[in-house]
Amino acid sequence: MPHINLPPGHSPGISGLLMYREETAKPLRELVEILLLGPSTLSPGEREIIASSVSWWNDCHFCHTSHGAAACAHLDRDAEFIDAIKAGLPNEPLSPKMRALLHVAHQVQRGGKHVTDDDVAKARAAGATDVEIHDTVLIAASFCMFNRYVDGLGTWAWPEKEKFMEIGRKMAKGYLEPYVPSAGQ
Amino acid sequence: MPHINLPPGHSPGISGLLMYREETAKPLRELVEILLLGPSTLSPGEREIIASSVSWWNDCHFCHTSHGAAACAHLDRDAEFIDAIKAGLPNEPLSPKMRALLHVAHQVQRGGKHVTDDDVAKARAAGATDVEIHDTVLIAASFCMFNRYVDGLGTWAWPEKEKFMEIGRKMAKGYLEPYVPSAGQ
Repeated sequence: MPHINLPPGHSPGISGLLMYREETAKPLRELVEILLLGPSTLSPGEREIIASSVSWWNDCHFCHTSHGAAACAHLDRDAEFIDAIKAGLPNEPLSPKMRALLHVAHQVQRGGKHVTDDDVAKARAAGATDVEIHDTVLIAASFCMFNRYVDGLGTWAWPEKEKFMEIGRKMAKGYLEPYVPSAGQ
Repeated sequence: MPHINLPPGHSPGISGLLMYREETAKPLRELVEILLLGPSTLSPGEREIIASSVSWWNDCHFCHTSHGAAACAHLDRDAEFIDAIKAGLPNEPLSPKMRALLHVAHQVQRGGKHVTDDDVAKARAAGATDVEIHDTVLIAASFCMFNRYVDGLGTWAWPEKEKFMEIGRKMAKGYLEPYVPSAGQ
């Protein structure tokens, strides 16, 4: 049960909250659109992996699974890939740069001061640019917000990851429009 | 030393980061403007107290002190009030509603799932509306982002709280414009 009164049949996770309070929804939608789909030398799939990983570390099922599903949509993978993100993608051919940036993101999730000069030096040695480091920190930080927003208000989500594949495909196309599950969901 | 190369003489804390990356600055500025200064039944001073408190719990000196200084500007208090926020305002005549909302904000800071039905019921019994509960959760969540952004990139800040009174007065008037410290700072 959500902690506030949302209308009957409201959308899951953050989708219902964004429809509840349109004033705050506008900058939140624009932020995630720029961070995950805007011009960047990190691919949208890579950025969704960072978003989904941070959400997993924050124990936010809705954000972890939906952004994992968005990564699946970008990378043409099936829902099993969401479990691979949970496990830290041990068997995926991630670049050393992505592994170093994922480590920086994990430090941010623990707290801003956990990011060390050494963490950043290793990312830079693996080829990360200043803007990539900046954006990784801000993506990780922003999901520390989104995760707390979603769980702090007690929103609902499907238990099964397969149900998230529809929202993942929608998210991969853009974040500016509301999401309402189709009748089959 | 910041973890990325910001120009010589860059502004402290988030101010320098917002000037570094204007694309992400726009929604971040709009979000904080709406949350802290937009129409609300919580006063700007009350909302700055929530922002400053969450930043203190997250050990973010720049955000804690600057939003504490913004609270001072709204409430016509001197810099000692910033230390009172640190201490949990034990001697201030805060309303029971504000005390209950501050507790909800503290739970959000710990993690979204820490917010219980009982926490929300107590806030509601003290007079909090759904929108006030929503906004308190989102303010607390957003400062879990801002704090990690500021410290995750290793930005600088003045040690002394008195130096923040200028930025506090500027923040109390609006968040949409860049901040550059005056020559006396």
